[in-house]
Amino acid sequence: MEAELKEILSDVDALKRSSIDPSLHNSIDQLRLRVEHLASLAESAPVQRSKVKDMSAEVIDSNPYSRLMALQRMGIVANYERIREFSVAIVGIGGVGSVAAEMLTRCGIGRLLLYDYDTVELANMNRLFFRPEQVGMTKTDAAVQTLSDINPDVVLESYTMNVTTVEGFDTFMSSLKKKTFRSHKEGCGVDLVLSCVDNYEARMVVNQACNELNQTWMESGVSEDAVSGHIQLLIPGETACFACVPPLVVASGVDERTLKREGVCAASLPTTMGVVAGLLVQNTLKYLLQFGQVSRYLGYNALKDYFPTMEMKPNTQCSNNACLERQAEYMLAKPARDAAAKAKLEAEALVVEEIPLHDDNEWNISVGDDIELEESATPSTDVLPEGLVHELPAADEYKHASSLEQDTQDANSADDLDELRRQLEALNAV
Amino acid sequence: MEAELKEILSDVDALKRSSIDPSLHNSIDQLRLRVEHLASLAESAPVQRSKVKDMSAEVIDSNPYSRLMALQRMGIVANYERIREFSVAIVGIGGVGSVAAEMLTRCGIGRLLLYDYDTVELANMNRLFFRPEQVGMTKTDAAVQTLSDINPDVVLESYTMNVTTVEGFDTFMSSLKKKTFRSHKEGCGVDLVLSCVDNYEARMVVNQACNELNQTWMESGVSEDAVSGHIQLLIPGETACFACVPPLVVASGVDERTLKREGVCAASLPTTMGVVAGLLVQNTLKYLLQFGQVSRYLGYNALKDYFPTMEMKPNTQCSNNACLERQAEYMLAKPARDAAAKAKLEAEALVVEEIPLHDDNEWNISVGDDIELEESATPSTDVLPEGLVHELPAADEYKHASSLEQDTQDANSADDLDELRRQLEALNAV
Repeated sequence: MEAELKEILSDVDALKRSSIDPSLHNSIDQLRLRVEHLASLAESAPVQRSKVKDMSAEVIDSNPYSRLMALQRMGIVANYERIREFSVAIVGIGGVGSVAAEMLTRCGIGRLLLYDYDTVELANMNRLFFRPEQVGMTKTDAAVQTLSDINPDVVLESYTMNVTTVEGFDTFMSSLKKKTFRSHKEGCGVDLVLSCVDNYEARMVVNQACNELNQTWMESGVSEDAVSGHIQLLIPGETACFACVPPLVVASGVDERTLKREGVCAASLPTTMGVVAGLLVQNTLKYLLQFGQVSRYLGYNALKDYFPTMEMKPNTQCSNNACLERQAEYMLAKPARDAAAKAKLEAEALVVEEIPLHDDNEWNISVGDDIELEESATPSTDVLPEGLVHELPAADEYKHASSLEQDTQDANSADDLDELRRQLEALNAV
Repeated sequence: MEAELKEILSDVDALKRSSIDPSLHNSIDQLRLRVEHLASLAESAPVQRSKVKDMSAEVIDSNPYSRLMALQRMGIVANYERIREFSVAIVGIGGVGSVAAEMLTRCGIGRLLLYDYDTVELANMNRLFFRPEQVGMTKTDAAVQTLSDINPDVVLESYTMNVTTVEGFDTFMSSLKKKTFRSHKEGCGVDLVLSCVDNYEARMVVNQACNELNQTWMESGVSEDAVSGHIQLLIPGETACFACVPPLVVASGVDERTLKREGVCAASLPTTMGVVAGLLVQNTLKYLLQFGQVSRYLGYNALKDYFPTMEMKPNTQCSNNACLERQAEYMLAKPARDAAAKAKLEAEALVVEEIPLHDDNEWNISVGDDIELEESATPSTDVLPEGLVHELPAADEYKHASSLEQDTQDANSADDLDELRRQLEALNAV
């Protein structure tokens, strides 16, 4: 707008110069004043923040990344700036997807692919992100408008389309495979797919695409009564896929479009959707930047503030063929995984054995294992500035205890399921 | 801007009419085209949504409250529109407070009082809400700008000031007492105070004000390493106040301003702050609209997705005098609370006894209590459209249990207060 106003001003000036009639000069001067006034109004319009080449930890007000880079000094993340290398696809830019996109944008994610076919309505205003002035825009366009203002460092790709159509699915698949940004992985051009859709059909489409591409993804959902939700991590072949177990939120049998046409409307709350988006992106950050414990399934019951967790193994009778292929690959790779785990354990044991004993050790005195002592003596990696204490027990306490616990659980549940499968197969064979 | 452009256009037209030199006409026409182009650009500028008189449940795209009013049909909230009667004060409009304010605004809260002295910086951009174009504005002004665009139905009061100064505390107290909006309560003009500040000193100030005013409030906090947080409900006299127990997030001893000056900067994440804001406002909605179970304390450990809960009784040795006064009042009212609870139990027992028996009931056969049967036979209030199932246990299961509990509590506290007033008046009369 500034450029247009400058052109108008120079036009007015040229007009004055070329006018030989002095009676016109007054009118032209008046016109010039009006245009100048308009220019001053336009100048108070927003200025955009410029791009930032490298993320810095410098503590100055003008650094948009100082509070994120501080995660390194706090001992939470080893290399925060790696976030710029990742591509995340978000399917469904509604109450959960839009907030997830905003969180990742503010975190400085490398590249975001956004998929939705819907437009913004006033009826969406009870959830975060979209603004009344965006009513009528497609959700993808409105999201790109807001997100590029918030953080111009993020590469945004907008796909205004329905992934559940035949054509839409093809575009979806090829956009996920496209490696314009980074090509560190086989098969797929994105690091994670987030499903933030509101219907069963679209979830099954994301499931199909991710099974085919062997692409890890996260599911999210909020119930029709707005007071519960969940997030779920799906690793093809390793965890249950969306078709492996009866889905937890379904519109089974009835066409959902019929429901909507009949004036039935689901309730929604910015709180529940904000919490689910927060848990989803937190799990995304933990997964991508490798810190904390990535949750396999986390539920949220708002009425009781109850947060159930669970693990779901793949169903060997899954109706999805691509899932069965991924399961077979995962089983095939088991010996290699076990060997690697064993080698790791042995390498760790070797370090302990290597503690040198004195040659003239006639009483065979050995230096005791002082790992425990060291752990309590040295400060944890979690260094806080003087005078600050942690609100909850330090992260590494959990990590230590829980990773042991987790391993045991995994082993148990795998054995249980194998046993269960043997029993079922035996029954079927009869 | 539109008005200014129209004036410029009519100036240009007048210029053309008054110009006798035809060689100027071309230049003037070109100028007119430029101004018209600018006008078309300006036309695509935002339009605001108009105010809504009554909240409607009508399912149309243009209804900003349809998804909230649907909470009634879903059996979650008895009377959603009551939200318009409530005033909530938010102290600290940072990473948690700004998002809490946006959620309450989108939910259609009646009145919001916002307190902060700080200005928006680029360093805040790693959390939700503020936009780069707002850098340099006070947080309260920027918040009012955004929130009034989102929902013009909400009455917004902005207090750009530091509540921890002597003068600030006075303004804070009188603003809380002011009953411009609603005067249903004694003592205070707000229904709830939310503390979203980032330091110990400010929390102690909110604690002091709420203890003096006998005002229920909720505390929130996020740790310096950005991966844990909590919310807490504080009811003066009934629960621990902020001075009763050693605070969970503290910068003990060291002046926090010194820390900041030395270039130490706390980490923060939009995810953790978004989750804490969501849990805080969810608890607020449950408290104000009386549904579900209001949490007394809810923690969030992001590394493990662990959500501890607890209850904290007041400390009889608390250093805060106002807290001790509220505790004494609460203890004084205990007999009345107990009597009311007993009366209620007896009333319920009476209902069971009143079941009529036939006069000629020689075998003394009585009709069994069929409340249980009825409950399983009739559909729950939670009517979902055909084909939809709940993701987690149905809301009314919880509501049933918790609303009974709630009723008892409410009845108790009302009776307690009346009894207390009588006792206090008797004391004053002496």
